[in-house]
Amino acid sequence: MMKDKKYLLIPGPTPVPPRVVEAMSRPIIGHRSAEFQTVMERVTGKLKKVFQTENHVFIQGSSGTGALEAAVVNLVNTGDKVLALSCGKFGERFAELARIYGGEVDFVDFGWGYDIDLNVVKKKLEADPAIKVVFATQNETSTGIQNDIEGLGKLVAQHDAVLVVDAVSGLAAIDLKTDEWHVDVVVSGSQKAFMLPPGLAFISVSEKAWKKIEQNTTPKYYFDLLKAKKNIAKWNTTYTTPVSMVFGLEAALDMILEEGLENVFARHKLLAKATRAAIQGLGLELLAPDECASMAVTAVQAPMVVDADTLRKVLLRDYGVTFAGGQDAMKGKIFRIAHMGYADKFDVITAIAALEMALGKVGYKAELGAGVREAQMVFVGGEHA
Amino acid sequence: MMKDKKYLLIPGPTPVPPRVVEAMSRPIIGHRSAEFQTVMERVTGKLKKVFQTENHVFIQGSSGTGALEAAVVNLVNTGDKVLALSCGKFGERFAELARIYGGEVDFVDFGWGYDIDLNVVKKKLEADPAIKVVFATQNETSTGIQNDIEGLGKLVAQHDAVLVVDAVSGLAAIDLKTDEWHVDVVVSGSQKAFMLPPGLAFISVSEKAWKKIEQNTTPKYYFDLLKAKKNIAKWNTTYTTPVSMVFGLEAALDMILEEGLENVFARHKLLAKATRAAIQGLGLELLAPDECASMAVTAVQAPMVVDADTLRKVLLRDYGVTFAGGQDAMKGKIFRIAHMGYADKFDVITAIAALEMALGKVGYKAELGAGVREAQMVFVGGEHA
Repeated sequence: MMKDKKYLLIPGPTPVPPRVVEAMSRPIIGHRSAEFQTVMERVTGKLKKVFQTENHVFIQGSSGTGALEAAVVNLVNTGDKVLALSCGKFGERFAELARIYGGEVDFVDFGWGYDIDLNVVKKKLEADPAIKVVFATQNETSTGIQNDIEGLGKLVAQHDAVLVVDAVSGLAAIDLKTDEWHVDVVVSGSQKAFMLPPGLAFISVSEKAWKKIEQNTTPKYYFDLLKAKKNIAKWNTTYTTPVSMVFGLEAALDMILEEGLENVFARHKLLAKATRAAIQGLGLELLAPDECASMAVTAVQAPMVVDADTLRKVLLRDYGVTFAGGQDAMKGKIFRIAHMGYADKFDVITAIAALEMALGKVGYKAELGAGVREAQMVFVGGEHA
Repeated sequence: MMKDKKYLLIPGPTPVPPRVVEAMSRPIIGHRSAEFQTVMERVTGKLKKVFQTENHVFIQGSSGTGALEAAVVNLVNTGDKVLALSCGKFGERFAELARIYGGEVDFVDFGWGYDIDLNVVKKKLEADPAIKVVFATQNETSTGIQNDIEGLGKLVAQHDAVLVVDAVSGLAAIDLKTDEWHVDVVVSGSQKAFMLPPGLAFISVSEKAWKKIEQNTTPKYYFDLLKAKKNIAKWNTTYTTPVSMVFGLEAALDMILEEGLENVFARHKLLAKATRAAIQGLGLELLAPDECASMAVTAVQAPMVVDADTLRKVLLRDYGVTFAGGQDAMKGKIFRIAHMGYADKFDVITAIAALEMALGKVGYKAELGAGVREAQMVFVGGEHA
């Protein structure tokens, strides 16, 4: 096997398109130059289109977790009541962050493999008008579940609380109409559907959220959004921004906007559908039910004969294909195939073909080509539909 | 004039060598893969050589300011006495951070254009044994002053306090023997002498500092060093690390170590000497006295006939050359020429030649070539010495 041909199919970091790599290779310019200010203005404008918002979207040098922290330290004061809606690892992370910064957290655990139940949220909000912030995850990467953010947004909008959505792994893959759905704070990151390396995070903030941020007294510095807001007109950035990454971001945003947001979402939906059909064609169990299955990543339960991580090792060793494993309690029990960002039909075909061959090696009886055929049928149907 | 030929001579971000750009363009790999763990171990080993330490050096996705914040939130508890030694903007930033996180800050301002007076520090430390942390800046970028970190390290080592040094713009340009000089925490960033784009920060931590960090209760998450320490063996990283930047970092470290640390420092010293000789040859005033002049960046006072920022505009407009301006109170009064990182003799020659021509345009009488000749004399002498 060639040594360099590798297939990275994990839910972030994801492969970077050549056009983005090229943009990131441009000569460095000063982050306080008029030239970079123009770039930042232009990029922010494009970013707002992808966020589907008129709110300002901040660009921050950090991982997605750094942006979750920014949301928390700007909104949560010691003793504030917050509602943390969790379906997996990243829902738990939001709750942990809120707790660390003094929030009185009502942690609602819907369970790994389940989505947020809006009826529960409705009752919680009605029962306690003091709830100040509601934290939710758009696409729970750990389980391949996506939540009904539209429904959640409409619910929270009726209350004083602001809705903060972790869209790190879902934005630009799954529709999220920030303004129309009343999502006050949307957080995302560069290394998922945005097709960039890790290193940038994005945060949009609504007027309703600014009112709470203005009253916040939690100590902060690097993640201070009010300070960042004051610097928009002057520099569009508070500290030294990763300029190369911003060049790459513009190329990625151009690719997304040229394809068209609706087409980007449709492509992700098609890839998810094909992946799920293929998995079922191989007789394997999907973790997420159809109605809340992620369009960005598919979680699959390991067959009885083999541990998921053993299967992943065979895939990497013999075929150069990397799937993600399960996290925490799901470790060894599931594997996850990403189809987000710079992903197309033949990435799914590659994933399924490799999986079929690896399954054979670990003693699971699967007809070679059976999963691939199911995926092809979706593609043929999907294209003609 | 060609549109693409630009000369960036600011103290960060600095130009990135082609070898580093190439490394950063490699295909993305998973940040939790065995392959990346190997890369991180190798890179950390090389980073330790540049830090001249046996302490672990953490790699964090943020600007340098994010790493200053990491030092503060891990070391400073509410009410802790800290000594903040300041010679300019970045000394002030450290103090501000310590204040925000509840430190009882003794802010010692040596003034913009001056270095730290060790006698003052000695008296302060002797007068108050409760001082827990001493913050200092190795290379004060805002004024082009470098401090005697060796002397400071020996002083602080005699006390219970730990010494935290902001070496963001100085490390890998100016000698800093972390272990030998007893510097407990050294903070640096990617976009200065490390020759990378902005986006990574580095922090080394001594045993003496870990003892204080273990007792720290300041809320933190993204910048939590104790958590990062626990993750060294497992993944070498807590959150998603900018993998492309780490590839670039290895290439940059290889360049530094192949050249040899002593040679890297000597090169910076030579470039600084040539720049200073040229400036004086043009009859302009240097901000920093010889004995504490930075080897990484030279601050020059604007001549009476022109505001520094007007001069900088002419340099950029007519010659594509970018110098840095003065910050805060120094705005318009000084300009700064960087000679750090991927910088060699002809970057200095370019800077001075452009300056001579721009000075003529704004009405300052300078003989063309007079500064260039002074720099050349240093280079000829320097090479033969």
